[in-house]
Amino acid sequence: MSDAAAQHPFDAAIALEHVGPDLMRGATTPDYANMIGPFGGVTAAVFLRAVERHPDRIGSPLSLTVNYAAPVAEGEFDISVRAVRTNRSSQHWLLELGQGGVVAATATAVFGNRRDTWTDTEIMPPSAPPADVVERSQAMDFLAWTRNYDMRFVEGGIPTETDGEQPESTTTLWVGDHPARPLDFPSLAALCDVFYPRVFKRRGQAMPAGTVTLTVYFHADPEHLERQAEEPVLATAGARQYSRNYFDQTAEIWGRDGNLLAIGHQLVYFKG
Amino acid sequence: MSDAAAQHPFDAAIALEHVGPDLMRGATTPDYANMIGPFGGVTAAVFLRAVERHPDRIGSPLSLTVNYAAPVAEGEFDISVRAVRTNRSSQHWLLELGQGGVVAATATAVFGNRRDTWTDTEIMPPSAPPADVVERSQAMDFLAWTRNYDMRFVEGGIPTETDGEQPESTTTLWVGDHPARPLDFPSLAALCDVFYPRVFKRRGQAMPAGTVTLTVYFHADPEHLERQAEEPVLATAGARQYSRNYFDQTAEIWGRDGNLLAIGHQLVYFKG
Repeated sequence: MSDAAAQHPFDAAIALEHVGPDLMRGATTPDYANMIGPFGGVTAAVFLRAVERHPDRIGSPLSLTVNYAAPVAEGEFDISVRAVRTNRSSQHWLLELGQGGVVAATATAVFGNRRDTWTDTEIMPPSAPPADVVERSQAMDFLAWTRNYDMRFVEGGIPTETDGEQPESTTTLWVGDHPARPLDFPSLAALCDVFYPRVFKRRGQAMPAGTVTLTVYFHADPEHLERQAEEPVLATAGARQYSRNYFDQTAEIWGRDGNLLAIGHQLVYFKG
Repeated sequence: MSDAAAQHPFDAAIALEHVGPDLMRGATTPDYANMIGPFGGVTAAVFLRAVERHPDRIGSPLSLTVNYAAPVAEGEFDISVRAVRTNRSSQHWLLELGQGGVVAATATAVFGNRRDTWTDTEIMPPSAPPADVVERSQAMDFLAWTRNYDMRFVEGGIPTETDGEQPESTTTLWVGDHPARPLDFPSLAALCDVFYPRVFKRRGQAMPAGTVTLTVYFHADPEHLERQAEEPVLATAGARQYSRNYFDQTAEIWGRDGNLLAIGHQLVYFKG
């Protein structure tokens, strides 16, 4: 098997080459295409990877915010990556993804070194049968990126014509990269965005919708990821309010032993 | 009464003058001083005000993310304000707050025009007696900014020595500017940050802690704010997980008639 054949599609999608001191170049791949432009999760992942690959980077990610300004067009893109401030234990980054001189997305990230402290989790993971007894959901042909995830819905699967309106928006699923791939920070960031829009469940139908801004808080550190390895995560999401074209979403990504690996918040545009 | 005397301390704290096409200048005020540097909420507010005052701005705020890179020093600061992308109904902004050429904070914001859509709120406001029957909390002498808020704790007041450790982190309070001031987007952003660090309640004691990044999703539009006027809001916040120096916080800001005006998420550093 050649190296190219051995590369996971996710790694190909977030691959970057250095083209300047604070500038990296990547390209969209058909594997992670969404309706228009790439899956938002892979854009978040490539921003995070850009910081990870920067020679000045310290520590691991604490937070990432991505603003989706316009669909990323098929083809190459440049990411400018700037460390605006480096402190003793944390580092602040500003990033822009451009194509032909036009900004398609921006991001800010905070990285840092962590130390042991008092630890506690106030909430419980959702209850779910083990992943291997839940049926794998079929990928959606018109959303290429879904072919690269193993999704097993426990609650709130993709609405069908017979579902009708629902009184609340929770979706819970087992999910992992397909084929399986050791969890890293870029894939964890992408997992925060795997949920179909909450308004689809509430209204029982699809409608125009798209993430405007995504924020991920990383509770996991590198040791947590190593322990998680290629196991699927238990992901759950819901919304609080829908009002005049926008709703919020909060997602929790749970790992082995009821460990909360990340929280993802987003504001989503909808029309309907 | 002169104009200066008539100006609310909050308006003085977020006042900006244009010093270049994409550059504004403000200054910290003693009224909103925190332990070190200004109250984080007022920094969020001044970023939002900078976009509001930019001649190219369209619509009202949808989201704001502020990364606190270092304490803002007492005195003047410059805010660079750049519209990185303007679409038909939304606009993406990138901002940096600098002092002497060094970045102290960054922000991204999304503004836009909203239209009527299907509307729903999935969650309920916390139960609370009316604001006027709840006792006003005393301002803390060592935190000047608290003098400029009327805070009435319904649950989870500031821990005293006798409180000890608590099993969960919820704080709910009636809160408004003091003296009363009509609610606007900058003050709404600041209100998302009025909570003392959740870890203080859990551990029953104060310890070094500070917000690293704050994201606000604005569900309110200008009509909601007009209806709210000078009435206090019902604000509630809690945390999900504390792990290796960082915990998350989610706040809900509820207005008249059980209207969810904003959601604030933050990641907070702590040591202890």
